Parts: sequence; structure tokens; C-alpha cells
Amino acid sequence: MDPTLINFKVLYVLTQLCGLTMIVLVGTWIGQHFGGLGGTDNPKQEFNWHPLFMTIGFIYLYGNSILVYRGFRTTRKKTLKLTHAGIHMAAFVLTVIALKTVFDSHNLVDPPIPNMYSLHSWLGLSAVIIFCLQYVAGFMAFLVPGMRENYKIALMPLHIYFGLFGFVLAIASAVMGLTEKAIFAIPNYSKLPSAGVLANIIGVLYVVFGGLVVYLATEPSYKRKPIPEDTALLTANGNE
Amino acid sequence: MDPTLINFKVLYVLTQLCGLTMIVLVGTWIGQHFGGLGGTDNPKQEFNWHPLFMTIGFIYLYGNSILVYRGFRTTRKKTLKLTHAGIHMAAFVLTVIALKTVFDSHNLVDPPIPNMYSLHSWLGLSAVIIFCLQYVAGFMAFLVPGMRENYKIALMPLHIYFGLFGFVLAIASAVMGLTEKAIFAIPNYSKLPSAGVLANIIGVLYVVFGGLVVYLATEPSYKRKPIPEDTALLTANGNE
Repeated sequence: MDPTLINFKVLYVLTQLCGLTMIVLVGTWIGQHFGGLGGTDNPKQEFNWHPLFMTIGFIYLYGNSILVYRGFRTTRKKTLKLTHAGIHMAAFVLTVIALKTVFDSHNLVDPPIPNMYSLHSWLGLSAVIIFCLQYVAGFMAFLVPGMRENYKIALMPLHIYFGLFGFVLAIASAVMGLTEKAIFAIPNYSKLPSAGVLANIIGVLYVVFGGLVVYLATEPSYKRKPIPEDTALLTANGNE
Repeated sequence: MDPTLINFKVLYVLTQLCGLTMIVLVGTWIGQHFGGLGGTDNPKQEFNWHPLFMTIGFIYLYGNSILVYRGFRTTRKKTLKLTHAGIHMAAFVLTVIALKTVFDSHNLVDPPIPNMYSLHSWLGLSAVIIFCLQYVAGFMAFLVPGMRENYKIALMPLHIYFGLFGFVLAIASAVMGLTEKAIFAIPNYSKLPSAGVLANIIGVLYVVFGGLVVYLATEPSYKRKPIPEDTALLTANGNE
């Protein structure tokens, strides 16, 4: 096998292991130290959906959706585009639930905790808004038929840039969120009890996962090459 | 003038304005709300060098050093390499002072504040270590004569990747640092007093500055083209 492809596969597997470990550790963290998951009758438990679903949706799925084009090299382009849009939709749904639970958990306690004051909330919501704008623009440009080929070509670098920008901003927001939770809710965080060490390890994993995704998505030699089926479609339909 | 170059120049000026505003606002923030700068006899004031010098050195100068190759297109490559190493050295010196003052400000109070427990400190120090390794590796590979041309070519993408990775990690650490300072030292941060609004605005500016630097440094059409002097040197010396 081509050594470049072997390198890619090793790093891709490492990315998945890192991503899955990160999710398991967030689950362990909220389960062991913050009382696990719950509904609106227990705001503290309801809050815990926020880090869990943001990690699964807005980091792990977002990253994997970016990697779809590089991870599945023998699949038709059209299928990859639909998969990219589909995983992003799943990421969006989890992110919305994660936002709903944090607002709930702030509003349902007495006295209520203010919303949207922290830098975490400003940057995190910015990342969500960038993600949504990207989704709409990408859907119109690359999935709905009719966009002229030269517009698609002109838009693609911006789609890639803002996609990665939103992803990295999501990770920056996540490490800020961990910092907030650690300071507010881990007794003696500065003495690094197990909950604090776990928080820090999760943060390091977020960064390593993000670094791997961005590397795999931008290294030119890992770029997928068009397969015969892509070209066949192009000839048959006169567009794509 | 070439429209691509006009775009570049507009964004470059915007980047500088954003960077300088960010520095002025950090100065205002520590001056107006945290008692300004001071020496070892006043640990709270000594701490304030940390955000100021990190912002100037580890964000503004680090970013500008990355952009040297794209901002000064008519300067000889050799001069640019020395400038790149020089600005990075200035960034390093300010960063070391910024680290010294934060350790001092923790150790000189009674009881001392623990060092290196927070995710901010873990990721921030990782960014500094990556920066230092990059400096040594880059110096050996691209400034000290003797490295074989094919090694240089092989190392360059990694030098660029880890350079940008360290820069983005520095910014992620900075927004976490703002979060910590805001929670620990701004009374009623959740009601967004002026010190809190200013902290958040500084965080947004860090992100915008970072986003602009990475865009300008990675957009292929902004890449500097070799000038006649570079080639003349190559022919005269037989290497670069």
C-alpha cells in the first residue's frame, strides 16, 4: 500500500481512538463527579447533557463530518456530500439539545443563573452561529442543484476555512467550558483532585483530537482523488 | 494592482489594527480594573505583566512573525528568515518574563497559590514548549547552513503545521486565562460590569486576530513568490 495512505490510516485510527476516549471520559466525569444525567426536575443533572452532547455532537461528529471526504476515498462524491450533510445535521441536533439544557439549568434554579455573560458563552454561541451559516451556505451551494460551477469553485476555499474555523472555535470554547466547570464545581480544584485531573485530561484530548482532525483535513497529500464513478456521473448529467 | 494583493493588504491592515487594539485593551483592562503594573513587592500588580506580555509576545509578535513571509513580498528570503527568527526571539523573551511574573505572583502571596494545576496552565505551557521545540528545529533546519535541501523540503510542512498549531493553542490558552481572571477577580462577572465586558471583547479580538493570521498564512494565493535576488543567491552559493 502507498506509504502516504498508511500514514493517513494510522493517524485516522488514532483520531477515532482519541475522540472516543474523550467521549467516554466526559461521561465518566459527569457520572462520577456531578451526579450523572437527569431531566428538568433536577437542573444540576440536566446541565450535564451540555458537556456530553457538545462533546459528541459539536466536537466528535463535527470533526468526523469534516473528515468524511478523506476517510472514505472509494465512495462516490455525491454519497460523501450527503453523508457530510447528514453527520452535520446530527451534530446540529445534539448541539441544540446541549444549548437547551444549559439554558434550562440556568433558568430553573432559584435564584436563576444569568445566561450569555461569559466569554465561553459568547465564543461558543459564535461557533454555533458560524456552523449554522456554513450549513445553509454549503447546502445551497453544493447540494441544491443549479449553482454555477465557477461559483462552487470560488466558494469551496471559504467553506473549508470557515468550517475549520468553527470547529477550532468549538474546541476553544470547550476548554473554556471545562475551566468554568472546574472552578465553579470541583472543590479544591487547585489541589488537583481526581475530578480536576480528569477535567484537564479531557481538555488535552479535545486539543489533540482537534489538532489531528485539522491536520488530516488540510495535509494536501491526504486529499481524496476523484474516482471513476464521479467522472461517469459528470459525463452523464452534464453537471455535478 | 493585482486584486489578490489588494485583498491581502486590506486584511493585513485589519489584522494589525485588531492586534494593536487587543494590546491597548489589555493595557486598559489591567490599568483600570486591576491596579496596573508593579514589581515583586506587589504580587497582584506583578501578575498583570502576565496577560500584557503574553498578549504582546505570545500572540501579537508570534502572529506577526508568522506573517513576515507574506507581508514583505519584495524582501530577500534570507532577510525574511532572519526577521522571522528575530521576532520569534522577542516573542520568546516576553513570554519567559510573562511566565516568571505569574509564578512569582503565585509564590509571593501568603498562602501561596498553587502553580500548574489548571487546564489553562497545562495547555499554555504546552504551547510554550511547542514554540521552543519549533524554534530550535527551525533554526537548525532552515538557518544553520548544511541541512540537505530535500530534508528542508520535507520539514517545511511540519514547521508550518506546528507553528500554526502552537499559535492557535496560545490563543485557546489566552481565552481560558481571561475566563479564569474574570471569574476570580471581577466582582459580579455574571452581571457583566465594564471589566467583564472588556474581558469578553479582548477574548473576541484574540479569536479574530488568530483567525485573520491563520487565513493570511494559509491562503495559497497570498503566498510570496521568489524574487530575483533569492534566485541570484541560490546560483551564486550553490545552496540557499
